Amino acid sequence: MNFDNLINDYENLINKKLKTVYKNGPKSLVEVFNYVINSDGKRVRPILTLLTNHVCKGNIENALPAALSIEMFHDFTLVHDDIMDDDKVRRGLKTVHEKWDLGTGVLTGDLILSVSLNNLIKNYQNNSNVVKIFTKGLLAVCEGQALDKEFESKQKISITEYMKMIDLKTGYLLGMCTEIGAVTAEVNNYDARKLREYGILLGRGFQIQDDYLEIFSDSKKMGKSLQSDIMLNKKTFLMILANLKCPKLIQDAIELSKKDFNKGIDLVRKLLVEKGVKKETECKINEIFSEANKILNDLNFDTSFLHSYSMHILNRRR
Amino acid sequence: MNFDNLINDYENLINKKLKTVYKNGPKSLVEVFNYVINSDGKRVRPILTLLTNHVCKGNIENALPAALSIEMFHDFTLVHDDIMDDDKVRRGLKTVHEKWDLGTGVLTGDLILSVSLNNLIKNYQNNSNVVKIFTKGLLAVCEGQALDKEFESKQKISITEYMKMIDLKTGYLLGMCTEIGAVTAEVNNYDARKLREYGILLGRGFQIQDDYLEIFSDSKKMGKSLQSDIMLNKKTFLMILANLKCPKLIQDAIELSKKDFNKGIDLVRKLLVEKGVKKETECKINEIFSEANKILNDLNFDTSFLHSYSMHILNRRR
Repeated sequence: MNFDNLINDYENLINKKLKTVYKNGPKSLVEVFNYVINSDGKRVRPILTLLTNHVCKGNIENALPAALSIEMFHDFTLVHDDIMDDDKVRRGLKTVHEKWDLGTGVLTGDLILSVSLNNLIKNYQNNSNVVKIFTKGLLAVCEGQALDKEFESKQKISITEYMKMIDLKTGYLLGMCTEIGAVTAEVNNYDARKLREYGILLGRGFQIQDDYLEIFSDSKKMGKSLQSDIMLNKKTFLMILANLKCPKLIQDAIELSKKDFNKGIDLVRKLLVEKGVKKETECKINEIFSEANKILNDLNFDTSFLHSYSMHILNRRR
Repeated sequence: MNFDNLINDYENLINKKLKTVYKNGPKSLVEVFNYVINSDGKRVRPILTLLTNHVCKGNIENALPAALSIEMFHDFTLVHDDIMDDDKVRRGLKTVHEKWDLGTGVLTGDLILSVSLNNLIKNYQNNSNVVKIFTKGLLAVCEGQALDKEFESKQKISITEYMKMIDLKTGYLLGMCTEIGAVTAEVNNYDARKLREYGILLGRGFQIQDDYLEIFSDSKKMGKSLQSDIMLNKKTFLMILANLKCPKLIQDAIELSKKDFNKGIDLVRKLLVEKGVKKETECKINEIFSEANKILNDLNFDTSFLHSYSMHILNRRR
């Protein structure tokens, strides 16, 4: 089977399975659970899990429940992050706390995580390794989110601090996907560790690219939370670089965007191009993806589908 | 050792251990985590876990990590419930979202649950039963909370519906304590199931008593969320009974309390006494505790310390 068909099949399978995962709870919960879970996500994480399992010659049945739990884990973080940032739109739909109310947002996040964990424990009670990797990831994401919040109230953040934050917030979760994909295919420890490193790098590249697309993509799907990011003084790779290169100019542009969003953002974009920040970010993203692919090259089995997936992510427009 | 000393020792041990459970995360998280965890809780759940393990002649070392995870699980629910009900005070301290902000409240709840789960998985990777009981309880609590919220917008709730809700919200968690206390002492399945049933009943009695104390206790520690309960139209055992006996009068008193809280609540109390709701609730609480103790009597080992604990809870004033 070729790569595109495989990815497509995975996506359809994941979407189909997610539709049936929570149907018997209180009516109010079932409704909002499925509103979130069936929304138009990219399914990057569960696809990555299944794909890693595939290149490791595993049985998809052993990886699929974990892939679903990972997607739910991700969705839980989205619902709660949207509250923290007061974002109004997610995946083209109103966010939960916006469409319902704050309490429903908090509770729905908790529920999605509960369903995710129950699904995981049910399917991996004899594979405590999978459960352990998963719960470690949960802690990492909370800590990454906390650093992200801490950074809001600081002016100067170094690239090193930023990298630590996105590794916790995004990298470890993608590293969890590849590690669980590998572990459920019963590869040796060395290969599982290497695939985890690959996943973390992929996550790092993915996050910086997210920062980048949010400012430069034409897609309506992106730019979704650019306004809240600006208002909250979020630290992105581009803003940190710009703060190093032209602190005064970029701060003025950001202040302007708080008053006149479109005008301010146009100025921010112009500065990022003129001062070389855009170019440097593109280079950094490419560098990280190259580093990730190098890890794949060093493994002694066919990882070409993961290579293709790296490229699939690198070339995304949303 | 006598009962009071044992309970005291457990409480001190739990408080001591909780102080060291999360120290190495991002500064902002460590601070707020320990603010919540070290607050003046009654530690009902972890003490119940250890006590059950004790009467089952288990080794405390096997139950202690679970007891700590259960207390953290409970604290996670409190932090998020306080957001949902917008309560300002908890255990004599400002609630997290009130002292910090909403985002910190959401994230701190998530973190406490993450730490709880990591602590559980680390200590019970070879006892998947404990992990399974725990995650099932997590789902039950979310569903109970959802029903509680659903009831806010309904006028007529039956006692049966109410019982189902509090079993999910409170009962199963106490049932989890006794079941895990028993399982970590390696008792047979029958005894573990019976002790679970005892815990669920204890939780049911505890919750109705909570409803009761919130209205009738003189303690400053209670009545903490009475105002928000009234505003949110929360269904308690007493309100459901009153709605059956004198719907018009009680609704008028509640409406009055929304305008003049003290005057309205005095009228509510007066009605609950005059119409026999207070008395009937006291009877119901006693009936449930008797039923719980009957289960203990049927077990063929010495459960007197659990009897004492039932009485300890029944006689609490906060």
